Amino acid sequence: MEQHSHGYAEDKQAILRRLKRAEGQVRGIARMVEEDTYCIDILTQVSAATKALETVALQLLDDHLAHCVAEAARSGGTVADEKIREASEAIGRLVRS
Amino acid sequence: MEQHSHGYAEDKQAILRRLKRAEGQVRGIARMVEEDTYCIDILTQVSAATKALETVALQLLDDHLAHCVAEAARSGGTVADEKIREASEAIGRLVRS
Amino acid sequence: MEQHSHGYAEDKQAILRRLKRAEGQVRGIARMVEEDTYCIDILTQVSAATKALETVALQLLDDHLAHCVAEAARSGGTVADEKIREASEAIGRLVRS
Amino acid sequence: MEQHSHGYAEDKQAILRRLKRAEGQVRGIARMVEEDTYCIDILTQVSAATKALETVALQLLDDHLAHCVAEAARSGGTVADEKIREASEAIGRLVRS
Repeated sequence: MEQHSHGYAEDKQAILRRLKRAEGQVRGIARMVEEDTYCIDILTQVSAATKALETVALQLLDDHLAHCVAEAARSGGTVADEKIREASEAIGRLVRS
Repeated sequence: MEQHSHGYAEDKQAILRRLKRAEGQVRGIARMVEEDTYCIDILTQVSAATKALETVALQLLDDHLAHCVAEAARSGGTVADEKIREASEAIGRLVRS
Repeated sequence: MEQHSHGYAEDKQAILRRLKRAEGQVRGIARMVEEDTYCIDILTQVSAATKALETVALQLLDDHLAHCVAEAARSGGTVADEKIREASEAIGRLVRS
Repeated sequence: MEQHSHGYAEDKQAILRRLKRAEGQVRGIARMVEEDTYCIDILTQVSAATKALETVALQLLDDHLAHCVAEAARSGGTVADEKIREASEAIGRLVRS
């Protein structure tokens, strides 16, 4: 796995902010459980945290297609095929999760 | 929208077979409802039909990335950007549906 | 599996209409594939059909909770526990599909 | 919103452990982004964290049906109807998220 610049380099700060917020949401849910909050109100927060993570995933994927996959496609050959197969599998995991 | 050969050209027959089967599943669900089948058994079939449609979507998307998007990336420019933005939006709709 | 009146008895016609429409949507998707429609346009229709099936599932589940599960809860005992376990499993399948 | 014992009272410690783990997963994802980890590897972790939150949601919902909803059903009347409508809406949010 390469360690240099990635597809999400430009959006890195925005993604980190979103993840910080999602982490806070999950911690907030734990606090609600600690404090015996009503189940339905907790579920609303769980749905919100799940959606926040999905938004991060879609942004990472978008950047990945726009940079890594597009670059591999320009190089062509088996690397391109491999990158596309890999992206398709990641999309499959997201759709099914 | 172009009318010529598409990303899914090679998989066309396989996709049509899957869709034919999904259509049969939906018709089967309607028959279960007509015959007052137990709700939980119907729900199991609805989950199966939903999964079948997801599989079709993932196959179409895979072919689309491997052909249309890869080709656009090789051409470069705004067409490439547009194709990737369009694919990302379609992925977003799938993940959220 | 009982064959008498079910949770969805009152909504039966509405559910059948929705399923008829979903079946038409799936047939429409097959026609789009036959006619080599652009992949992204097909994906939009697949997302719509998936959402339509989800709506049917949620209506069936709602009716099931309001009738079968509520009735079992009133009777109490192991039947109630069994109905709730069964409903939870069906919800799990829907959430994960 | 009542503040007394809830549906998830018995599973409280298990749910808190799961949430603690999910919080750690989200923090781990942020660290991966900081360290410029390859996008696809990050996406795998995002799918895992999303699934962990879904599992928490399904457990909360299961407990809610088995306790709050079942109890309301036994009391009957508009409270029962209201609890079931509320549970159905929460299920809808989960299925669509």
